[in-house]
Amino acid sequence: MEVEKARVLIVGAGGVGIMAAYALEVGGKAAVTLVMRSNYRRAQDAGISIDSVDHGKGIREWRPTEIRNTIPDVSQEGIPPFDFILVTTKNIPDVPPTVADLVAPAVSPGHTAIVLSQNGLNIERPLLARFPQNPILSSVSMISTTETSPAVVVHDFADAQKIGPFVPQPAAEAAARRYVAVYNGSGRLADVVYDADVPRARWHKLVYNASFNPVAAALRMDTARMRMSRHVVDDLVRPIMLEVVAAARAAGHVLPPDLPDALIRVDPVEAAFRPSMCQDADKGNLMEIETIVGEPLREGEARGVPMPTLRTVYGILKGLQLQTKVAKGLWEPAFDDDNPYR
Amino acid sequence: MEVEKARVLIVGAGGVGIMAAYALEVGGKAAVTLVMRSNYRRAQDAGISIDSVDHGKGIREWRPTEIRNTIPDVSQEGIPPFDFILVTTKNIPDVPPTVADLVAPAVSPGHTAIVLSQNGLNIERPLLARFPQNPILSSVSMISTTETSPAVVVHDFADAQKIGPFVPQPAAEAAARRYVAVYNGSGRLADVVYDADVPRARWHKLVYNASFNPVAAALRMDTARMRMSRHVVDDLVRPIMLEVVAAARAAGHVLPPDLPDALIRVDPVEAAFRPSMCQDADKGNLMEIETIVGEPLREGEARGVPMPTLRTVYGILKGLQLQTKVAKGLWEPAFDDDNPYR
Repeated sequence: MEVEKARVLIVGAGGVGIMAAYALEVGGKAAVTLVMRSNYRRAQDAGISIDSVDHGKGIREWRPTEIRNTIPDVSQEGIPPFDFILVTTKNIPDVPPTVADLVAPAVSPGHTAIVLSQNGLNIERPLLARFPQNPILSSVSMISTTETSPAVVVHDFADAQKIGPFVPQPAAEAAARRYVAVYNGSGRLADVVYDADVPRARWHKLVYNASFNPVAAALRMDTARMRMSRHVVDDLVRPIMLEVVAAARAAGHVLPPDLPDALIRVDPVEAAFRPSMCQDADKGNLMEIETIVGEPLREGEARGVPMPTLRTVYGILKGLQLQTKVAKGLWEPAFDDDNPYR
Repeated sequence: MEVEKARVLIVGAGGVGIMAAYALEVGGKAAVTLVMRSNYRRAQDAGISIDSVDHGKGIREWRPTEIRNTIPDVSQEGIPPFDFILVTTKNIPDVPPTVADLVAPAVSPGHTAIVLSQNGLNIERPLLARFPQNPILSSVSMISTTETSPAVVVHDFADAQKIGPFVPQPAAEAAARRYVAVYNGSGRLADVVYDADVPRARWHKLVYNASFNPVAAALRMDTARMRMSRHVVDDLVRPIMLEVVAAARAAGHVLPPDLPDALIRVDPVEAAFRPSMCQDADKGNLMEIETIVGEPLREGEARGVPMPTLRTVYGILKGLQLQTKVAKGLWEPAFDDDNPYR
């Protein structure tokens, strides 16, 4: 008798979501429902194309168990509950819908574990409040994958994830361990691991993300050029890294002392890599400012850590985000009645 | 017998330079040689058009005593010395030519007074070093004037200048007083005045220029929208203003305590005014970062004043300047041999 497969819903079908769908399906322990948007039509018609450093090149016309272009409404549709919902969308709490609102119709209370594969801090709080009976899990991912055209993915840096429960509680821990086992059903993904210390993993990744990302977005500059300039690293990237390391330490997470220097040099210099927030700025998209910049700043300052560089860069990024909101019709410039600067 | 007119060379024929030329000529005490560049042809062919809040509307086909498109070489050309050289170009010491190099052929040692109508600090140092026998004068100008098309100027905010010697020394003081008298030969310009306290006037103006200018450039945002947002003022503009006020105080210049609040509201909100550095960013031009941001930062920090907001904004602006230099072919991205980040 075949073991029943885990039912996994993936919300967010960019490069990360598609590679997760593939890993889960190829492992044989999951049946994936992938929610696609702009790439839905192409995936329906011609399947998904993948060239993967983990799973091989030349994967063509591939489809997971189910593709759809809406979030399932489990009770309305009368479908079986999902065991896991993996969320790989951007997390931009300053504009609706929130992640909690987005996934709510697909969540079965007391059953579905929600896996947040998103960067930054405190992203679990709205979900813990909204779904108090459900395990909320963290994935900190180091994968590099790009959707070069709709439903066409190049996956060039190995899938590596640290997965654990946001709240160290037995049911959530068990769900996290089961998710790791299901995800790596293929046995190919040695770097997709259970890691109980979620906050540490998140702070660790922020040392890169809170520094290179907003600076790259403000300057529209790749990381190689930042390093060639020297001063962008000396004046901005390194000071922010040291501020984030100090904030992490104040929060109880001692990161390796050589981490900033290692991360400054982590990107290949031949590649002119533009961090994701810079790519969003390039495209006129909203940026994940609050989770990646605002929250670590607030966490550090609440513990008395001086973070003047990140504070100022946060102010710049909020201003740039405001310009994007104006362009998208999400903010109409005007003076509120109580604005002291009118 | 007619009193001999002062010979005045004006280098930089944008809105400020053209209005200075007009004021000087209409006063009857100066003969102006105006060095024009992109607007030279139009001024030669059709004259200069001016609508001025000080001098009247409808001034058409006007020309100063002389228009040329090169800096005069006084000794080579065998022409009489200039009594004054007024410099109204941008001051961007990070790219050649320097102001000193630019004006050198027109300077008669021991005779010509050089008037710098440019913003920021320490702009006089290279000129004092290069022309130790010549008076170096400061003009801090509050005029608002725009060259709407080549040699067509709209002058909409009254000409107001504080003029004095950078070094308080009798010959320079006398030259400054003479320049004020010559400039206001018309008697119309009550706000063009001698002011011996040059550093104070410069710090005073920097409270606006070092705050609104770089923030506007980084965000590509007008001052009205900054105020509508609130947070751009709260997080960036006001903190920088307070840092500059503290730096000025440390340098011995106590500015009015209500100055930041007054300057935050100084621009008309109907106008969506973009400060000059923002206009330069819009056009892909180099920005006056060192004189307006870098020097006040260095002056303040050298006196132990914490200026974390301006320091970070300076880092951002230097990065943006670097991108402009790349676009103009002034910097080729590469690693120097001794770059520690390669």
